[in-house]
Amino acid sequence: MSGIFISFEGPDGAGKTTALKKLMPLLQAKTDQEIVLSREPGGSPISEKIRKIILDIHDEEMDPRTEALLYAASRRQHLIDVILPTLKAGKIMLSDRFVDSSIAYQGGGRQIGTREVAAVNDFAIDGHLPDLTIYFDVTPAVGLARIKKDHEGAMDRLEKEAISFHNRVYDSYIDLLKENPDRIKKIDAQQSPEQVVQDALKVITEKFPETFNKGE
Amino acid sequence: MSGIFISFEGPDGAGKTTALKKLMPLLQAKTDQEIVLSREPGGSPISEKIRKIILDIHDEEMDPRTEALLYAASRRQHLIDVILPTLKAGKIMLSDRFVDSSIAYQGGGRQIGTREVAAVNDFAIDGHLPDLTIYFDVTPAVGLARIKKDHEGAMDRLEKEAISFHNRVYDSYIDLLKENPDRIKKIDAQQSPEQVVQDALKVITEKFPETFNKGE
Repeated sequence: MSGIFISFEGPDGAGKTTALKKLMPLLQAKTDQEIVLSREPGGSPISEKIRKIILDIHDEEMDPRTEALLYAASRRQHLIDVILPTLKAGKIMLSDRFVDSSIAYQGGGRQIGTREVAAVNDFAIDGHLPDLTIYFDVTPAVGLARIKKDHEGAMDRLEKEAISFHNRVYDSYIDLLKENPDRIKKIDAQQSPEQVVQDALKVITEKFPETFNKGE
Repeated sequence: MSGIFISFEGPDGAGKTTALKKLMPLLQAKTDQEIVLSREPGGSPISEKIRKIILDIHDEEMDPRTEALLYAASRRQHLIDVILPTLKAGKIMLSDRFVDSSIAYQGGGRQIGTREVAAVNDFAIDGHLPDLTIYFDVTPAVGLARIKKDHEGAMDRLEKEAISFHNRVYDSYIDLLKENPDRIKKIDAQQSPEQVVQDALKVITEKFPETFNKGE
């Protein structure tokens, strides 16, 4: 029995967080291995301190490369404090966003370059890529419309960026999907929430049939 | 008239900070260009917030790669907020430590690997290497003896490391010196403080004779 690491990716408003809450009990019903859900920087005090600096809306003069390095630092500590111990204990780790988010948001969105940001994140994760990444596909227009409806008046710095930023993020995700066909699997996140959850469940159980084998 | 960027490097206890204070007025007397002295994260509010996380003695569980990424983030923002504007204004920037410190301390001292840490710092500085780096050479034994005398009871996390750590830092500085003979110049920091300052002054004025040409 060994741990499994699954990340969930997608543009803002893709509905990942909501879907993950519904997915958790459905997945848990299919396996005896404990499933742990985390979102950077959750559960890592150092990561939380770092993330606080990044998301502080007053830090508007923050350079994009500084931001990318801080995300990588926060990710590293979250990996060490939360993800690796979970996997070592033979548990299943579901992570709401991971390395692909930085490549898409900082590399593509902020135009630092996806290759450059990938290199910094390679240093941060030191080979610990997810075994599977579920990409929630939603166009920028649909994603942003959902955000505006849900979070009016409480949007953080990234979400306040222009539409062109979100278009570049989207394009970068599509590139990552093409470059990593074995690791990253796309689901249509513009379907009904129920169908999105069912599609994610199907991808995961088909990828790890020996782990998710209960109740069949 | 263009700016000049000079960094000062060396192990703990090399006497850089003290020498820099004495060097400043002597250098300024030799040129009409304004000289600015800085030390990361000085003068950059975001960098100071980042450095606060690194140096917090309670963060003892911080992973070495997290630390390296945070130093790189702090350096990046200090470069953007302080160093580049100073150079753009045609001033002379003296920096107490820069990229070589991370390569020696995190790459060598913490054994992440000097090449790996150099790559992360390449991302952070994006080509903005110093025009000249003065390396203050002092053996770990002499350097540490000086620190213990000066800062008893107030040593920060890095300074509390074992002697083997400081030996690796020293070896990494010597490697950097060999690999960058044009940029990095060594001075013997075990001489009297007055002689150290005179040697640093000589290296700088000989490297930039057109800039430091007053009073001759």
